[in-house]
Amino acid sequence: MSIQAKIGPSILNADLANLAEESQKLLDNGADYLHLDVMDGTFVPNLTFGHPMVKCLRNKIKEAFFETHMMVQNPEQWIAPMSDAGVNLYTFHIEPVEDVCKVTRLIQEAGMKVGLAIKPGTSVKDIEKYVELADLVLVMTVEPGFGGQSFMADMMPKVEWLRNNYPNLDIEVDGGVGPKTIDCCAKAGANWIVSGTAVVGAADQRQVIGDMRNVVKSYLK
Amino acid sequence: MSIQAKIGPSILNADLANLAEESQKLLDNGADYLHLDVMDGTFVPNLTFGHPMVKCLRNKIKEAFFETHMMVQNPEQWIAPMSDAGVNLYTFHIEPVEDVCKVTRLIQEAGMKVGLAIKPGTSVKDIEKYVELADLVLVMTVEPGFGGQSFMADMMPKVEWLRNNYPNLDIEVDGGVGPKTIDCCAKAGANWIVSGTAVVGAADQRQVIGDMRNVVKSYLK
Repeated sequence: MSIQAKIGPSILNADLANLAEESQKLLDNGADYLHLDVMDGTFVPNLTFGHPMVKCLRNKIKEAFFETHMMVQNPEQWIAPMSDAGVNLYTFHIEPVEDVCKVTRLIQEAGMKVGLAIKPGTSVKDIEKYVELADLVLVMTVEPGFGGQSFMADMMPKVEWLRNNYPNLDIEVDGGVGPKTIDCCAKAGANWIVSGTAVVGAADQRQVIGDMRNVVKSYLK
Repeated sequence: MSIQAKIGPSILNADLANLAEESQKLLDNGADYLHLDVMDGTFVPNLTFGHPMVKCLRNKIKEAFFETHMMVQNPEQWIAPMSDAGVNLYTFHIEPVEDVCKVTRLIQEAGMKVGLAIKPGTSVKDIEKYVELADLVLVMTVEPGFGGQSFMADMMPKVEWLRNNYPNLDIEVDGGVGPKTIDCCAKAGANWIVSGTAVVGAADQRQVIGDMRNVVKSYLK
């Protein structure tokens, strides 16, 4: 078994005015990584935060694995500052990008791992030729832009197709994933699980994270 | 005397991962308002934060006066969410806006005061026909986008022209303003003073804020 089950909380629905403490709490409760939702108001109709905040967070949290989910029109623009901010995995959407190979190369040259993301309306075939370049593929299970949306189960064939063709690829799902929807994600083959509301708002974060990880593990071969 | 001396720290160079605490500290040390720098990566080459963070901050800090400095390409887009987030004064740049009157009206209808901002390269004459619509005019004393830049004293004629023509207008300056540059701002007629690094990084924030306010007061008629 080469791929692992990982649960990455998104802090989008946490108290963003108290980001370091909220993030540390999630890590203390067993989060495997932090999924940081960067939105620019152009690629998606929401404006969250950028590298200055990620850098401040890194100054407080030295060791955790940071993924930035770049829901931005021009992902090339933020590679250098996000690398400087200590990001580990730079996941960007292929939809607005003309030269995916170039952006991928720049991310690697900046010392980060590469994630490729697709929106619900994007076919998995559109990402096929780039999969070999990526460390991870993110299949969005809601329209990106806001937290708290309902999970789209009809995205699971994309995950299945990726898992069937790339048994060792890290496949991430993001959007409406929680205890009620984790089973079909895990069964389809996702092994990196982003969870926002369901984890951040849980009375017992540790329990929810642990339960979700166990479901994913149960499907890993 | 109808206009007052106000010092509004910018938290751009504070610990953004701990925003509520940093902001409360500034208010406890005598800040008259908070100047919140919203940047979208399009109008300026930096991406800071948007309404989700401002709303979280408002949830923690109920009473303070919040100004959002909208360094964004489409200020109309964020009027409703910033009003919902509890913003008091919505200051936007006229440079990218086609219909300044319309945006101004929408801000007022959303229950916020209106600030009009101009970059260093924009003539004060370009804002003349809109001044009567505004509660405040912001004259940038650095290129907007980043904190820590050097103050541009050659912007002071804009402030003087505004003060001479509008004795009761709130005139704000932002960029490189601190104990060393406050005198020429106050002498020119600015009465709302944004200060980032000089206040946030001060060993004694209360002293710096108080000293700067006293300089401004000394020039108010």
